[in-house]
Amino acid sequence: MDDSFDAMLSRFAEVAVKVGVGLLPGQKLMIRSPLEAAPLARKLAEEAYKAGSRFVTVNWLDEQVALARYKYAPRDSFEEFDAWRVDGLVRAIDEGTGVLNISADNPTLLKDQDPELIRKTSQTASRYTKPYIERITSFAVNWCIVPAATPAWASQIFPALTQEEQMKKLWDAIFEVTRMNEKDPVAAWKAHTASLQERVNFLNARRYKALHFKGPGTDLIVGLADGHLWAGGAGKAKNGSTCIPNMPTEEVFTTPHRSYVEGYVTSTKPLSLHGNLIEGIRVRFEQGKAVEIGADKGETVLKNLLDTDEGAKRLGEVALVPHSSPVSKSGILFYDTLFDENAASHIAFGRAYDECLEGSTELSAGQKATKGFNDSLIHTDWMIGSGQVDVDGISQNGQVEPLMRAGEWVS
Amino acid sequence: MDDSFDAMLSRFAEVAVKVGVGLLPGQKLMIRSPLEAAPLARKLAEEAYKAGSRFVTVNWLDEQVALARYKYAPRDSFEEFDAWRVDGLVRAIDEGTGVLNISADNPTLLKDQDPELIRKTSQTASRYTKPYIERITSFAVNWCIVPAATPAWASQIFPALTQEEQMKKLWDAIFEVTRMNEKDPVAAWKAHTASLQERVNFLNARRYKALHFKGPGTDLIVGLADGHLWAGGAGKAKNGSTCIPNMPTEEVFTTPHRSYVEGYVTSTKPLSLHGNLIEGIRVRFEQGKAVEIGADKGETVLKNLLDTDEGAKRLGEVALVPHSSPVSKSGILFYDTLFDENAASHIAFGRAYDECLEGSTELSAGQKATKGFNDSLIHTDWMIGSGQVDVDGISQNGQVEPLMRAGEWVS
Repeated sequence: MDDSFDAMLSRFAEVAVKVGVGLLPGQKLMIRSPLEAAPLARKLAEEAYKAGSRFVTVNWLDEQVALARYKYAPRDSFEEFDAWRVDGLVRAIDEGTGVLNISADNPTLLKDQDPELIRKTSQTASRYTKPYIERITSFAVNWCIVPAATPAWASQIFPALTQEEQMKKLWDAIFEVTRMNEKDPVAAWKAHTASLQERVNFLNARRYKALHFKGPGTDLIVGLADGHLWAGGAGKAKNGSTCIPNMPTEEVFTTPHRSYVEGYVTSTKPLSLHGNLIEGIRVRFEQGKAVEIGADKGETVLKNLLDTDEGAKRLGEVALVPHSSPVSKSGILFYDTLFDENAASHIAFGRAYDECLEGSTELSAGQKATKGFNDSLIHTDWMIGSGQVDVDGISQNGQVEPLMRAGEWVS
Repeated sequence: MDDSFDAMLSRFAEVAVKVGVGLLPGQKLMIRSPLEAAPLARKLAEEAYKAGSRFVTVNWLDEQVALARYKYAPRDSFEEFDAWRVDGLVRAIDEGTGVLNISADNPTLLKDQDPELIRKTSQTASRYTKPYIERITSFAVNWCIVPAATPAWASQIFPALTQEEQMKKLWDAIFEVTRMNEKDPVAAWKAHTASLQERVNFLNARRYKALHFKGPGTDLIVGLADGHLWAGGAGKAKNGSTCIPNMPTEEVFTTPHRSYVEGYVTSTKPLSLHGNLIEGIRVRFEQGKAVEIGADKGETVLKNLLDTDEGAKRLGEVALVPHSSPVSKSGILFYDTLFDENAASHIAFGRAYDECLEGSTELSAGQKATKGFNDSLIHTDWMIGSGQVDVDGISQNGQVEPLMRAGEWVS
């Protein structure tokens, strides 16, 4: 094996194209990439063409242009949006194009910017991107998110190192947690997603009424929606492709009940949100709604987010991740949800996933809500699991079954 | 004046926003930029916001992804196109967004690629981008093209220097020919466009029947369309903005007659086309049509281009540029039409400009053709002027008036 960085990046791109997005024969591909991730985006384009794609288009985004807006744009202009870009995404998806997103945000890009402008920008984006998000969450086509190391992100994680060392360490960590160091990464991913599927099948068979999280600062009952379905690992898109929406992925997840979440919970890792870090989140829920919200850092940004709409204070996802996951074992705090949510069990404020509710496509919004399915413009994961957190399943007749102890599956 | 590069680039961006695209109060702006031109694109975004733009969106393009397609895509897939990007441009323009293009092509990007694939790609692009091109050439909104130095381009021009020196020399040349070294570049541009306007007014008053080019390898009569209008320098867009479509710009230009071009002509500078260099072009025209086409280098690419459609072998532009223009005086061959066309008088194969025909918007395509207006999917300029070329104007009654001698205006 040629282990030079260039060869490794090509291999990573090949796995992302073949196993991640699960490119269909001749299928067109849209890559969404930050400018800083150009080396990976170009490799993905090459590997997609080599795998037979008829056309690869890259939708580039630039954080520096976004930052210039915060610094210099008229203060009353933050409800403007580049709708043409979403139109393009929707058109591409409706023509059957697969979507490969590169995640490489600078976690502190917006740390000095006005939270009110951040809130307005994010709300506007949520409103405009809804047709895109709906297609993604309902798996209209195959899609996948893969990470790329960038200098801004790497310097956040490894502040003491030189830039070259930072980038090398972050890429090494990415390759490790995405199983690229296995002898046959494609086979390793197939085995891994099969094992997640077993866990999904087990949990679907149990049909729990609720989960109970207990740990330091946490005693939380998360009711599950009627007809909730567990999912995890690979997903089956409507076009027949099997894709892995997130690389890395270690979670199994389902739909909480929007009106049945009770108790209090404390975050176990920082949440990186719109360029801000939110740490030490403490929330108390009553009848599914967050009624007390606090944070040691970034409280205003969090509260603004939860003011987006009625559903933003309720849960749309609950996910179980063992404390021994490769991401967790790396010991690295990535400041990026794609990683950190795969190091710990978590919940998400906001919109639930249609794939996690039985027969959701035949149900009206009202019918879904009655079953406990939550709707919102936002979907924000935050981490509540650790090596000190236990999880029980509560059956329909109130029986308590241990699922996780000290962060690990009991069986 | 702070003459550090960063400050100079900011000034250049400010001039491009205020004088080049002529941003209207609060107007939205779309920047089209190659990835390599990110430093300028970001400055343009900053300066546009500082000038009051409500929203700046950047439509990024990447040559490396384009090259990956030539290398690896299925050979029968070159009629695919990212239509979503053109949709976005058209939508933005129809909403009144100004357009600022950054020109920074690597002139030899495609030198090793199959001319047939290049032809197919370019024809497909011409077909899909027609709604965009029509809006640009009819000045539906204000627009401007500005250059940016990139390593690939700079190394072509100054092969003997180090990369750092190459970039510095090319930026210095760009700043020089775009009048950025004047004490007040905005005032200098206003004076320059006023002087081009005087030349335009003079030529419009003369109402020549034809121009006659004479020089080494050239004896060419270029008939002018009935109702031809001369243009140059600044343009007035339909939204009321005054913009400078090309920076630099030194030309005055008008519409040739599609059926009345006679004689032979030899190019005086290489033409950079789709990543190929075409040198030593020799063409003979009969009744407006190129009937003999040759080139010392790149002949196949040229011939493929001229096979695009019926109008591709006829002329859509004739332009006069004095041999003493700043671009010509720089002594640099830029391998880029935006520059090289401003160093020499030139003609263009293909589509004519509506702004250069009286009342064109009220005329049908057939009526325009009768007046001599040429239509085509292509518009490709090539240089035929030099310090050894004379130009005469031929009046409606056959009188010959000297316009240029040895490449300079006679008055």
